[in-house]
Amino acid sequence: MCESNAYLKDGENEVMLMESVDSIEPCGNGLKLMDIFGKQMFIKAKIKNMTLLNHRIILEEIGTS
Amino acid sequence: MCESNAYLKDGENEVMLMESVDSIEPCGNGLKLMDIFGKQMFIKAKIKNMTLLNHRIILEEIGTS
Repeated sequence: MCESNAYLKDGENEVMLMESVDSIEPCGNGLKLMDIFGKQMFIKAKIKNMTLLNHRIILEEIGTS
Repeated sequence: MCESNAYLKDGENEVMLMESVDSIEPCGNGLKLMDIFGKQMFIKAKIKNMTLLNHRIILEEIGTS
């Protein structure tokens, strides 16, 4: 399975936000994430970087940097 | 392997932009893509949506919509 985990950058730390993310799309002023089970989440954040081979998507809250 | 293919949305079509994408990160006013072989590409675009299970990342050029 090729889902990734989404982490939220919090200063030096990266906090797990959602596991097994399948899809991400911009929505309004943030991002809509959906995991492989269909669970959805909206967060006011942008993608900071992602490395698919490592299954990591790093998000950054908008307005905090 | 969990890389994805990146497509550029062109009207109704989606044109293959880069195969086997490993990482994406915002860079200046666009995105920097790198494939699993280390080849890099910069494009003035934003992520329109991505579905990792389908290995598809759809990009949209900035300023065309």
